[in-house]
Amino acid sequence: MIETNALDNIRVVLIQTSHPGNIGAAARAMKTMGLSRLYLVNPKLFPDEQAVTMSSNASDILDNAHVVDTLQDALVDCNWVVGSSARSERSLEWDVAEARECAERVIDKTKSGKVALVFGRENSGITNEELSHCHQLVHIPTNPEYSSLNLASAVQLISYECRVASLDKEQGQTEAKLGEGVATADAMDSYYQSLEGSMIDTAFLDPEAPKHLMTRLRRLYSRAQVSPSELNILRGMLVAFQKNMRR
Amino acid sequence: MIETNALDNIRVVLIQTSHPGNIGAAARAMKTMGLSRLYLVNPKLFPDEQAVTMSSNASDILDNAHVVDTLQDALVDCNWVVGSSARSERSLEWDVAEARECAERVIDKTKSGKVALVFGRENSGITNEELSHCHQLVHIPTNPEYSSLNLASAVQLISYECRVASLDKEQGQTEAKLGEGVATADAMDSYYQSLEGSMIDTAFLDPEAPKHLMTRLRRLYSRAQVSPSELNILRGMLVAFQKNMRR
Repeated sequence: MIETNALDNIRVVLIQTSHPGNIGAAARAMKTMGLSRLYLVNPKLFPDEQAVTMSSNASDILDNAHVVDTLQDALVDCNWVVGSSARSERSLEWDVAEARECAERVIDKTKSGKVALVFGRENSGITNEELSHCHQLVHIPTNPEYSSLNLASAVQLISYECRVASLDKEQGQTEAKLGEGVATADAMDSYYQSLEGSMIDTAFLDPEAPKHLMTRLRRLYSRAQVSPSELNILRGMLVAFQKNMRR
Repeated sequence: MIETNALDNIRVVLIQTSHPGNIGAAARAMKTMGLSRLYLVNPKLFPDEQAVTMSSNASDILDNAHVVDTLQDALVDCNWVVGSSARSERSLEWDVAEARECAERVIDKTKSGKVALVFGRENSGITNEELSHCHQLVHIPTNPEYSSLNLASAVQLISYECRVASLDKEQGQTEAKLGEGVATADAMDSYYQSLEGSMIDTAFLDPEAPKHLMTRLRRLYSRAQVSPSELNILRGMLVAFQKNMRR
């Protein structure tokens, strides 16, 4: 039940796809992973016979696809937007997450609303204006010497990670009923931010030369799979320390 | 370096592929994930122009592909063989692993030899005789109502999991080189004592009613298996906080 709801809150948005076959292959990729909501922003050719052929038996997803004029139209009601682009955005000023980590976040976000996974044009990707609508970019760890994933493959991999994250979460929730489960990514993030603030205030962390300190702490705590009540202890302790610090 | 070696020890074996386009798409999928060794058992049509077209710029993998007559010929020198089949083998008497877990095992196995990932025919999968050459079967957690992954997508997903497992392993080994392992119990105890002191000083912990706080923190950190350099970070941070606290 939980799984179905999570994946039902995810929409796949394809921007100006040139080849209808890619739309069909993306629909098939989505359906194999239990995703069903497809938005097409200004596709070159749609509906089209080739899309149906490439969708195999996933043409129900094509039949129900929303064709819209602008990215904004496709993002209506979404409160978390992830952008995937063939270009390397690692150097830009965006929050970039690896596919696995990104998918965990996506599944967390589906609890409170709808999430969009936005995929750019086959050749030219996503424009900077379009990127500005995204809260996070996703990076698929391809071979740096050959990162030529086609559109449907990118949809396949991200959908797969979302499905696995959803199944894991479902499992986690089953376990939570027996015990406790793991604190959400959002809750951990808010703790990390507060921690980082104090690290900077006390000059332990130099924002100009952060030396991966936050990354290493994140890795440590994520390895430990901190439970909600443990996070309460960590947070309470930090707040107590902060209150006692000189301004 | 480690990564390259691990992935170089993996070969992808496609049994009697009907459509040369699928061979090309599989080659592309492999190359995006850093795999390069392709074995084709008795393909219907190969070499073929459509394979080259679908391979995008991965035709070097097609050029170097080994075309053989039997599965046995493709498995020469391999000491771990994984089978992937579109049919559900869950009911059969095989060792079946989820893709993620399977990939971790594959990367482990590459340390001591060569590994084969065997993919069956588009329609009829792998025969029982062929399955008998496999040490493990891999299951991709598809939508039970629509598990129609095409051949190249299956290759894409398994190759992706192998790449991620290899990168994770590499990262683990880099950390191991930093002289890591787990901090000693003495070193952890001394950190806990210092932490407890500050918890009492800031009135977060009441020594008269400690509420198992220290026990819970100890359990959290011992689950994480804190490394010496991570303990240095935790300790350094605590000292920085303490220095900034009002007496």
